[in-house]
Amino acid sequence: MSQLRQNPATKEWVIIATDRSKRPGDFCDTVCPPPTNDVEHCPFCPGNEKKTPPEVFSYRTYETKADSPGWWVRVIPNKFAALEPKGKIERSKIDHFFLHMDGLGRHEVLIESPEHDKCLATMSEKQVEDIFLAYRERSIALSKDKNSELVIIFENHGKNAGTSLEHPHSQIIATPVTPMRVRHLVEEAMRYFDDHGTCVYCAMAEKELALKERIVLESDNFLVFQPFASRSPFETWILPKKHESNFDNISPELAKELAFIVRKTLLKIYKGLNNPDYNLMVFSSPCHERDVEYYHWRIQILPRISSMAGFELGTGIYINTVIPEEAAKFLRDVEVE
Amino acid sequence: MSQLRQNPATKEWVIIATDRSKRPGDFCDTVCPPPTNDVEHCPFCPGNEKKTPPEVFSYRTYETKADSPGWWVRVIPNKFAALEPKGKIERSKIDHFFLHMDGLGRHEVLIESPEHDKCLATMSEKQVEDIFLAYRERSIALSKDKNSELVIIFENHGKNAGTSLEHPHSQIIATPVTPMRVRHLVEEAMRYFDDHGTCVYCAMAEKELALKERIVLESDNFLVFQPFASRSPFETWILPKKHESNFDNISPELAKELAFIVRKTLLKIYKGLNNPDYNLMVFSSPCHERDVEYYHWRIQILPRISSMAGFELGTGIYINTVIPEEAAKFLRDVEVE
Repeated sequence: MSQLRQNPATKEWVIIATDRSKRPGDFCDTVCPPPTNDVEHCPFCPGNEKKTPPEVFSYRTYETKADSPGWWVRVIPNKFAALEPKGKIERSKIDHFFLHMDGLGRHEVLIESPEHDKCLATMSEKQVEDIFLAYRERSIALSKDKNSELVIIFENHGKNAGTSLEHPHSQIIATPVTPMRVRHLVEEAMRYFDDHGTCVYCAMAEKELALKERIVLESDNFLVFQPFASRSPFETWILPKKHESNFDNISPELAKELAFIVRKTLLKIYKGLNNPDYNLMVFSSPCHERDVEYYHWRIQILPRISSMAGFELGTGIYINTVIPEEAAKFLRDVEVE
Repeated sequence: MSQLRQNPATKEWVIIATDRSKRPGDFCDTVCPPPTNDVEHCPFCPGNEKKTPPEVFSYRTYETKADSPGWWVRVIPNKFAALEPKGKIERSKIDHFFLHMDGLGRHEVLIESPEHDKCLATMSEKQVEDIFLAYRERSIALSKDKNSELVIIFENHGKNAGTSLEHPHSQIIATPVTPMRVRHLVEEAMRYFDDHGTCVYCAMAEKELALKERIVLESDNFLVFQPFASRSPFETWILPKKHESNFDNISPELAKELAFIVRKTLLKIYKGLNNPDYNLMVFSSPCHERDVEYYHWRIQILPRISSMAGFELGTGIYINTVIPEEAAKFLRDVEVE
């Protein structure tokens, strides 16, 4: 018999469909095609800096100039930006009904490495650390734009996860509206705080630490686990143990610890599931609701192993064929250096 | 410059990203592989009725027996059901925190035709009419189950839309919980009703009829249009013009008109976009909120032309590269018999 589970933080239900359950190892054949290494035409490879808009941030050797080789992390505005820093913030209505506004915002690309064929799981720890430091810098910068309502950082790894360019990169988007989905998440967290006087994500971390069965990894300050109501096989959350609503308040020291544990988590997924496509997302509190006691920043990794069909799209209820406790055990047992 | 648009009914934002806009015709190369016609092993083909659970409903010639050939629409419980009519309705909590319950509910498959290689767009009008009459019968039956909170009917067409079996079929699921997404939709509709004294979907239909630019098709009782804030290229909504909250209240005469207009819409999509994968969903009011003045049943068709990536998954804001007014014009101009 299957089971319905509710995520205590989001209040979203999932169906854990054990009757069609797969063993965690059954997913090992979901392989990304190997990168083609077409470095000549890749706009993100060193030497091709002129193919992108001018960089807004980089870590590079001190004698090199912007938009030339010598960088190891490089941030540029997205050439095909969904949102751009132009236009008006005012909203208007067509026929007193259809609300719209200019596509005002920020959309940046963070090139994670000069090496075309690396990914977060296979880069050095130092490289991943600098990526997270760059996330922090750009998140701080974009949050300060008075038009920003939400800053989200995400990485699409592999074609099924929606990426079109192989070269490892993340994206950072600042939206001029609070997305309804985020508003609902914040409202649920606020309601929990009103009822219990604590942050629901803090409560979740505490419960998971006590129960142990869904934990994948742990460090002094971070917890990696499969949520009780995982929406898809191997959905993975990374939470700071100490309450904090905004990722970009992280100290450089903690960013280093975070980079280490994210890399190790991704390496377990890479090895255990044979490099599946995935989306990684960094969620923070909305820009005008910073430093709140009821919301908690977190990283979510969603391997794109199962697909969303009419039921998921229509109801928001996902059907997950792997029991989260088994997924956690599977990932715990994957040995990485 | 791109534009942000909000759906007045759902309050969800989308980004219409005109800078990376594609012309509607650019999508014509998204082709489903042709069906392989492996009728010998297909559990949904006539003659293989014993490969499925016993039928719960069928339209068949009068002298034939259940679970034998002679049917033209056949409904069976899903062999790999996400939810089943067994277990307890009571919810319980693990450690006073993690809410769960048995996977109690109904999950049926509606085999749309004895012919393996047809789809809704290419079937006869009479066949599609009988499919919609069967939707109605099963929706009425499942809604009456006291444990049902929501009944959703959906069709996944093509592999990218999440189907694993080629033989044309739909699914009907009754859930024992109201999904959060549906609760939010109902609450938004209720709020609009409180503010304006009318159903927001009725208001939307009225506005679309007045503006005309997003209308694809129209009949006496139904309106087919591209929503102002379409989430993906060619997202299509079909609304009854007269207020009604539950699909299964439809009369047999109106079901016939609906089948005709749905088939024609799908044929335009099939011809104009070269048979793309899609999800079709029939949304009704929750089972314990029937016949309400603030919610409106509707059909949504979501071609799976673009993919959801980290931004969409994280924020719920979709990036749509086709302007809905252009998509509507494109589909209006596709000639079908």
